[in-house]
Amino acid sequence: MIISKDQIADIAMGGAFLATGGGGDVLVGKMTTEEILRRHGDVELMPLEALDDAATVIAIGSVGAPTIMQEKVSNGMEALWALQALEAYLGRKADALIAFEAGGLNALVPFLVGAQRKLPVLDADGMGRALPELQMETFSIYGVKATPLSMAGDLGDNAVINTRNSAVAEKLVRQFAIHAGGGHCCSAEHVMDGKTAKRVSVPGTISLCHRIGASLGTHYGKLDLFLADLQTILKDTHYGKMKCLFEGKIADVARRVEGGFDMGDLRLESFGADKKEMRIAIQNEYLIAKLDGEVVATVPDLIILIDHETCRPITSETIHYGHRVAVIGIGAPPIMTTPEAMKVLAPRCFGFDTDYKPL
Amino acid sequence: MIISKDQIADIAMGGAFLATGGGGDVLVGKMTTEEILRRHGDVELMPLEALDDAATVIAIGSVGAPTIMQEKVSNGMEALWALQALEAYLGRKADALIAFEAGGLNALVPFLVGAQRKLPVLDADGMGRALPELQMETFSIYGVKATPLSMAGDLGDNAVINTRNSAVAEKLVRQFAIHAGGGHCCSAEHVMDGKTAKRVSVPGTISLCHRIGASLGTHYGKLDLFLADLQTILKDTHYGKMKCLFEGKIADVARRVEGGFDMGDLRLESFGADKKEMRIAIQNEYLIAKLDGEVVATVPDLIILIDHETCRPITSETIHYGHRVAVIGIGAPPIMTTPEAMKVLAPRCFGFDTDYKPL
Repeated sequence: MIISKDQIADIAMGGAFLATGGGGDVLVGKMTTEEILRRHGDVELMPLEALDDAATVIAIGSVGAPTIMQEKVSNGMEALWALQALEAYLGRKADALIAFEAGGLNALVPFLVGAQRKLPVLDADGMGRALPELQMETFSIYGVKATPLSMAGDLGDNAVINTRNSAVAEKLVRQFAIHAGGGHCCSAEHVMDGKTAKRVSVPGTISLCHRIGASLGTHYGKLDLFLADLQTILKDTHYGKMKCLFEGKIADVARRVEGGFDMGDLRLESFGADKKEMRIAIQNEYLIAKLDGEVVATVPDLIILIDHETCRPITSETIHYGHRVAVIGIGAPPIMTTPEAMKVLAPRCFGFDTDYKPL
Repeated sequence: MIISKDQIADIAMGGAFLATGGGGDVLVGKMTTEEILRRHGDVELMPLEALDDAATVIAIGSVGAPTIMQEKVSNGMEALWALQALEAYLGRKADALIAFEAGGLNALVPFLVGAQRKLPVLDADGMGRALPELQMETFSIYGVKATPLSMAGDLGDNAVINTRNSAVAEKLVRQFAIHAGGGHCCSAEHVMDGKTAKRVSVPGTISLCHRIGASLGTHYGKLDLFLADLQTILKDTHYGKMKCLFEGKIADVARRVEGGFDMGDLRLESFGADKKEMRIAIQNEYLIAKLDGEVVATVPDLIILIDHETCRPITSETIHYGHRVAVIGIGAPPIMTTPEAMKVLAPRCFGFDTDYKPL
């Protein structure tokens, strides 16, 4: 499939949906990517099956506080610079790019670089959604070393790091974003061959973003039609069951910034006379949903809030009192629920005193 | 001059003296260096004049919280690993090493690596004393780029960074020390040729450490003899006037940790019946001394507290109520008081509302 600037808006909207509340607003990233593709041309979206086993695959994406990126706009070059720094270090070039995260802006970043470098972008990613930290990428979970990893900021600073594990790399990337990138940087990481990429990636996620985004466009404001279409779309994927968990309005938002994350709790009240109550815990993303005190959905399954009127996904930092929403749950793909994956993706890894409860 | 393990104790003691209160206790670093020289052999201490103009010179040293290094002992390899990472990045090897700082432990670090790599250590450094941040090195002040700069931690993590200026590099090194090195790392930086090193370094500082350390050994407990000898030693150097500013006891210590630094204020009372009062401001190092309210010494001039009985230099984190001390002021070398140097070394750069007042 060839991706031109005309498909970028749909991929961005689908990315915002898979972001499960994280990843911030994708508007600026969408515009930057459209402009780069207008200048540099189309990009091939390559299915994992079409990838050569010996190809060099490099994962790329953007790291930092999404709220900052709304005002301090990316120059569109950071990801390319990060890739170049890593290639110089490795002494070899990438044959294909992969998004380390299909949620939010990061579904778009590989296209920015793919257009400038005429490289294919794989239809896959390392998270199947948005998640807050690097060691949560399936690449790391299934044994690919995160480093050598490179980073670049918008003023041209860069770094190449080698760390003993992905958790240390995560901390260094976060600090580079703060101290060299003004709150944001791009990274290139998890160098692997094509054969490995097929084993450790969440397949089909970029085309899924595209289909969900297109469906949101078609069914703008028609919740029932969108949900029915989403059900159909997901049937072709590795994702599990889809459920509409709740319809209601936001009754309370408690939000605080802690350790560089947006943390918080939402309280929702149902529209009906029965006044059911849902509570949702936030760490950038929506991570745990409880209905009348009972856990009904947990990370790594996807918990997505969409506007009840427009069906547009709502990010965790913009949600507010009175917002009328539908809460959608989607089962995570099997690669994200294995015992290995549970070691870093289970609710307890985020500090919650609850086990994973599949939808 | 050839440095064997038998000279290391004197260099360490002289380094502690030039550290002006910073740099922490040098005992562990001294023992590590003695052991490495015992295993790997002696190191040539090379005067700047003997250096080939075309030689590749690399500055090395240790970064982090000195208090941590007393308990989490260095493995003696971090500086070598940092050098190797930088050499691999550059594609060429160092011909000579230089201490980025002659104060405290960092007077020793080049010998650790020099012994293991059979490289000469230059009799010079980039600070002429201890100072808290990388952009305060004379190398940076006189136009040598700090990056590419490499860092390595004791568990083998490393990084090579390229930044737009030394202040950004300083922040990234500090964060690497915290997040990858457990509070401490070594760096290799400010790659320059021999001709440049001669222009931008503070000359003679390592042999000065050695002479001061030896004098402290000889004149242990004899303050007058030590001060007279110090006067003689300093006459052969680029340093300015030496004065004994105060003799008295610590009447009060106000200390707090702020932004990774030991900040504080000392109040001293003179031994005599006239009860003169001195106040000294600390940011790791002793930076400003006031006698009865009047500024008598400021950074970049050296303010050194030594024990009134033993003459041993006293670090700012160990000084305590009742400590009987002599306060010594030494004029900084001319290379540290030029208009360029004042842009980063004047008291105002440390947040003090006072100008540089030469001794």
